[in-house]
Amino acid sequence: MKSLDCIFKPQSIAVIGASSRRHTIGREILHNLIDYEFNGKIFPVNLKAGVIHSIKAYSTVLHVPDAVDLAIIVVPSKAVLEVARQCGEKGVKGIVVISAGFREIGGAGIKLEQELVKIVKKSRMRMVGPNCFGVVNTDPNIRMNATFGKARPKPGNISFVSQSGALGEAILNFGDQLNLGFSMFCSVGNKADVSGNDLLEYWHYDKKTGITLMYLESFGNPNRFTRIAREVTKTKPVVAVKSGRTAQGAKAASSHTGALAGADVGTDALLNQCGVMRTSSIEELFDVAMMLTRQPIPKGNGVAIVTNAGGPGILATDALINCGMKLPSLSTTVKKKLKAALPPEVSLSNPLDLVAGAGRKEFQVALDAVCADKNYHTIVPIFVQPITIDENEIAQTIIDANKKTKKPFLVCFMGVGFRSPGMEMLMEHGIPVYIFPEAIAKTLATVDNYRQYLNRKKGKFPTFKVNKTVVEKIIARNLDSGSKSIIGEDALDILKAYGIPIAPYTIAENGAEAVRAASKIGYPVVMKLNSPQILHKTEARAVRVDIRNDKELRSEFNDLKKQIGKLKKGEKFSVVMQSMITEGVETVIGVLSDPAFGPLIMFGLGGIFVEIMKDVAFRVTPLSDERADDMIRSLKSFPLLDGFRGSDPIDLDIIKDALLRISQLIGDFDQFIEIDINPFIVSGKKGMCKAVDARFIIK
Amino acid sequence: MKSLDCIFKPQSIAVIGASSRRHTIGREILHNLIDYEFNGKIFPVNLKAGVIHSIKAYSTVLHVPDAVDLAIIVVPSKAVLEVARQCGEKGVKGIVVISAGFREIGGAGIKLEQELVKIVKKSRMRMVGPNCFGVVNTDPNIRMNATFGKARPKPGNISFVSQSGALGEAILNFGDQLNLGFSMFCSVGNKADVSGNDLLEYWHYDKKTGITLMYLESFGNPNRFTRIAREVTKTKPVVAVKSGRTAQGAKAASSHTGALAGADVGTDALLNQCGVMRTSSIEELFDVAMMLTRQPIPKGNGVAIVTNAGGPGILATDALINCGMKLPSLSTTVKKKLKAALPPEVSLSNPLDLVAGAGRKEFQVALDAVCADKNYHTIVPIFVQPITIDENEIAQTIIDANKKTKKPFLVCFMGVGFRSPGMEMLMEHGIPVYIFPEAIAKTLATVDNYRQYLNRKKGKFPTFKVNKTVVEKIIARNLDSGSKSIIGEDALDILKAYGIPIAPYTIAENGAEAVRAASKIGYPVVMKLNSPQILHKTEARAVRVDIRNDKELRSEFNDLKKQIGKLKKGEKFSVVMQSMITEGVETVIGVLSDPAFGPLIMFGLGGIFVEIMKDVAFRVTPLSDERADDMIRSLKSFPLLDGFRGSDPIDLDIIKDALLRISQLIGDFDQFIEIDINPFIVSGKKGMCKAVDARFIIK
Repeated sequence: MKSLDCIFKPQSIAVIGASSRRHTIGREILHNLIDYEFNGKIFPVNLKAGVIHSIKAYSTVLHVPDAVDLAIIVVPSKAVLEVARQCGEKGVKGIVVISAGFREIGGAGIKLEQELVKIVKKSRMRMVGPNCFGVVNTDPNIRMNATFGKARPKPGNISFVSQSGALGEAILNFGDQLNLGFSMFCSVGNKADVSGNDLLEYWHYDKKTGITLMYLESFGNPNRFTRIAREVTKTKPVVAVKSGRTAQGAKAASSHTGALAGADVGTDALLNQCGVMRTSSIEELFDVAMMLTRQPIPKGNGVAIVTNAGGPGILATDALINCGMKLPSLSTTVKKKLKAALPPEVSLSNPLDLVAGAGRKEFQVALDAVCADKNYHTIVPIFVQPITIDENEIAQTIIDANKKTKKPFLVCFMGVGFRSPGMEMLMEHGIPVYIFPEAIAKTLATVDNYRQYLNRKKGKFPTFKVNKTVVEKIIARNLDSGSKSIIGEDALDILKAYGIPIAPYTIAENGAEAVRAASKIGYPVVMKLNSPQILHKTEARAVRVDIRNDKELRSEFNDLKKQIGKLKKGEKFSVVMQSMITEGVETVIGVLSDPAFGPLIMFGLGGIFVEIMKDVAFRVTPLSDERADDMIRSLKSFPLLDGFRGSDPIDLDIIKDALLRISQLIGDFDQFIEIDINPFIVSGKKGMCKAVDARFIIK
Repeated sequence: MKSLDCIFKPQSIAVIGASSRRHTIGREILHNLIDYEFNGKIFPVNLKAGVIHSIKAYSTVLHVPDAVDLAIIVVPSKAVLEVARQCGEKGVKGIVVISAGFREIGGAGIKLEQELVKIVKKSRMRMVGPNCFGVVNTDPNIRMNATFGKARPKPGNISFVSQSGALGEAILNFGDQLNLGFSMFCSVGNKADVSGNDLLEYWHYDKKTGITLMYLESFGNPNRFTRIAREVTKTKPVVAVKSGRTAQGAKAASSHTGALAGADVGTDALLNQCGVMRTSSIEELFDVAMMLTRQPIPKGNGVAIVTNAGGPGILATDALINCGMKLPSLSTTVKKKLKAALPPEVSLSNPLDLVAGAGRKEFQVALDAVCADKNYHTIVPIFVQPITIDENEIAQTIIDANKKTKKPFLVCFMGVGFRSPGMEMLMEHGIPVYIFPEAIAKTLATVDNYRQYLNRKKGKFPTFKVNKTVVEKIIARNLDSGSKSIIGEDALDILKAYGIPIAPYTIAENGAEAVRAASKIGYPVVMKLNSPQILHKTEARAVRVDIRNDKELRSEFNDLKKQIGKLKKGEKFSVVMQSMITEGVETVIGVLSDPAFGPLIMFGLGGIFVEIMKDVAFRVTPLSDERADDMIRSLKSFPLLDGFRGSDPIDLDIIKDALLRISQLIGDFDQFIEIDINPFIVSGKKGMCKAVDARFIIK
């Protein structure tokens, strides 16, 4: 991939569509570039040429006498193609198309965008947009603010990509108010060329970028995202807000897996599996960014609260515990230190309530003591200003204590409003300040997930010896016969070919064969329709269980055959006969091809657990052995597999093995839209684990 | 109860401990009273008398020549008793004790507080505090700000009670910044006399109070709270933050019910059952207050979003849907209206994205159209400022549209920071403005719960004919024998006495009797220890199930007897014999006496549902028939009772009846700390529902 330096590190910029008329985008962009003191040459381009904003203007980019690295295009959409062509001719390396009127309006706009992309590719340019808010690079050697907003981003280590222009503007303003510093910013608009993935990768190697924030509405290429994000998050935190939940997943799906996927499981699974922190709002995104931009990631989940007010201390405790953080009690050592230095009415516990009279000395002793204790990985000072205490003194005390430690501080200044001198002081020293303790709890919980991700084993992607040819043939045969679903013998054979244990079966085409099969298997038996294929087998009463003798069997066989009715030409009626399994725990392994994320793999306990309690886990594929393991353990009903009430614990390796083999299967074949292996019986007894029934939906 | 007018509507106030020294509470209180222009006489009291803050001071309240209605006391704790006595003597009607050093410091402080209460009661005064932040009444006829904070509360319809002084200060400041108007404010401190309940009741009859906000750390008298709150919420909204979750509930409890209660179920059940909205933070409390203070409660859960920016519209949609709100599609009528008036690139859906160019006209047409449609009960305008649009114009358009309708508006102005001129305009016109759309979603969800509460049937509290004498005797007998747990025959007899169907049983004291009983009952049978009583029956293997013949029975009987070992004097070994029930669904009815809320009643499905899935519902008692009904239906596993997979649906009236009878039982007897009726078998077949086993823990 070509580097995006052509976009973010130009030495000369042409603003095509520049204007002097106030309240126009063409004026604002030019003005912002000048006002932000772009460290290079600016060439306004406007059909009327002349002088714009005190700078000589040219009628086209081709008239510019110097080389042009980057062009910002704000002309009406119908003129964009011609302008882009001229840029190509001029040798411009990058363009940022602000103009709207492309794919987002549908119809002709889609075509226009396709044409634009062709021109860009042909000229070997890179393009941001169209329909975007612009780009920023705060690097003092560049100083480029090519947006049309009011914010003047301060330099810092945050890079931000936004898929919404309006949010982009809001984000820069908000960052300004929170005193956050940015490295680069990019509003990607319609992502016709440069995508979030490109930026994530580019910023991975950008030394000034410490953390990447993303506002996403869609994943263009989730596989590439996963690959890049997995690498990036090893060293740099990535935080994302992903909106626009995929209601598609929940739509009239024809299998359990489909119905269970519902909104958003794909996004959650994907972000979680590549270590990207996800927040549920822009506000939380900034809360997390505020911490990560200048404080280290804590080494554990132990929190010490030091407060001068009881109520907020309790609120913080509630919120932290609810978010899964820990508040270890004060150690004897800490208590000793504190007892000597604090007034007797201070009760020595965590949260440590220094009471309203606490001043610089008390805060200093308390903060130093908890910083020195290895049980605490994060320090949360809470301050509500009493009239007798100067907030600046407390802020300074917190700053001093923070300097002496490698533990992150998250401070709550409550009741002084959105901004106060003490808060400003803290922010200037890189200490995040929050107005409410709940924001601190959520922030820490999000960051703690990332810490756990960094610590967890990365896992392997084993490859099994399988028989692909068998599966190829079965798929081909079913497609040939016009069937979109594979059931019965074929379905079990696919599993067998991929080494997944299946319950033995015999095919019978008539009553006599069925009776013969049953006598070999031994009653009770299960009889299922093998062909012709009907999708909803259970509803169609195409599965008959617990058949106890020859008489029952004959009657059920005839009933089933009658129910299926007249067969089409070439179809042959047959049934699968299996032993009735009464031991073990029913589980379900499923696959759903998500329109955005590709195949998701699902695991859960069968019956009521999947149907009523919806207790299932999803992961994106390919699946590693470690993720297969935590997928199983993440179920609420996991204790049922783990020796509940004295039963034999299940050998989890057998389930993991099956999940990994299914992951390989869907990697090998992209024809599967949905898979249900239901039930996959597991048991404490080795050799008793097997798939009893399966169904594949193919495209 | 004496009215609290003596506190909130004084005509003369003495500030005892008044001072001219800056940064003292005695100075700040006096200063605030003067600065807020208290509409009555102020008398500074200070041992040194003289002049304080330009007002003649007196050495004690007894020296004040005029009558004194209210005294604000800020002297050191050791002087408070004497000062209070003087107030009593002077005929002061109310005192507000700001001074700390009472119950909150333990030991001598507790005693001091008890003495203080005695003085207050004896003099028939009412007291707020001690250890509080003060009181406010914004009524123009009173104008009392007797706090030592910086805020100058504006008049409005919110009354606020805070159990934390520090939060009280923060709350008044925050309210100021959000332009919220207060009627009264009270920091209750240690609640030695005036409690949150008193205030809730007082404000119920205060015409200026439209909504009550509460920050609570404990319920002094939950029963009284319930009684008052149920009345108040019929006409005035009450919103509460309750912190300090009761970890006690989860503490080493000896029953299922106890272990499941965990943190906070009592608070949730209590607030929910009396229509009090609960928010999880002070921030959310204000978000809700902002809406309720001047906008009506919506008539339904349909929301229309009108936005000029796609991204924030999507964020709002996600958040609203996640919170259970609905976004109905645009009707044909609305579409017609919009199509005629809006540019063609606007896609006509909900959220309605007017695109960035939208100005006054577009917003006006869109807002009027959705206001006129009965599918929408709440209107959410979202505005992100483009450079070409004046935010004040849009604010005015929103204000105009809001005036014409009875539907509430919740506005999001994103990216202009915490405050902007447009936001100020909206707030001045009583329209709540939020910076992020997620806050709007949470607010609407909270208010929608209240709407549903107001609409739901209130329910009856039936009284059943029961046999109290039997229960009295059983309790007495067990207490006499030193037993804290009632099991076996006694436990089943209690249920029988309260009309709850039980599985028939026979008592056997030796092997021969057991065999005789079994032959009458019919195998398989269940045998349980009857006495002596061992708490953890299952763990102690004191329940033997599925005994199939005489031989097995004799062997189990001997084994059980042997296991119990040597008996104490007066104890007699016996067993309860019952038929083994294999049909029906196992449920559990439980009771837990919460230290704060009194008895909570629990219901859930048995076995894994209660033990692993923790799928249980709690309610406070007494229980009404309607709450019993929604308690059962609130279970995630409810479909299993409702005809799952073609099984007969359970007659819910039988479960409801049992729950209501247990509610009556614990109303009649306060000796029960915990009750487990496990299993209570329910079935589609009438007459098959019965309690099989029960255990009562008594005090």
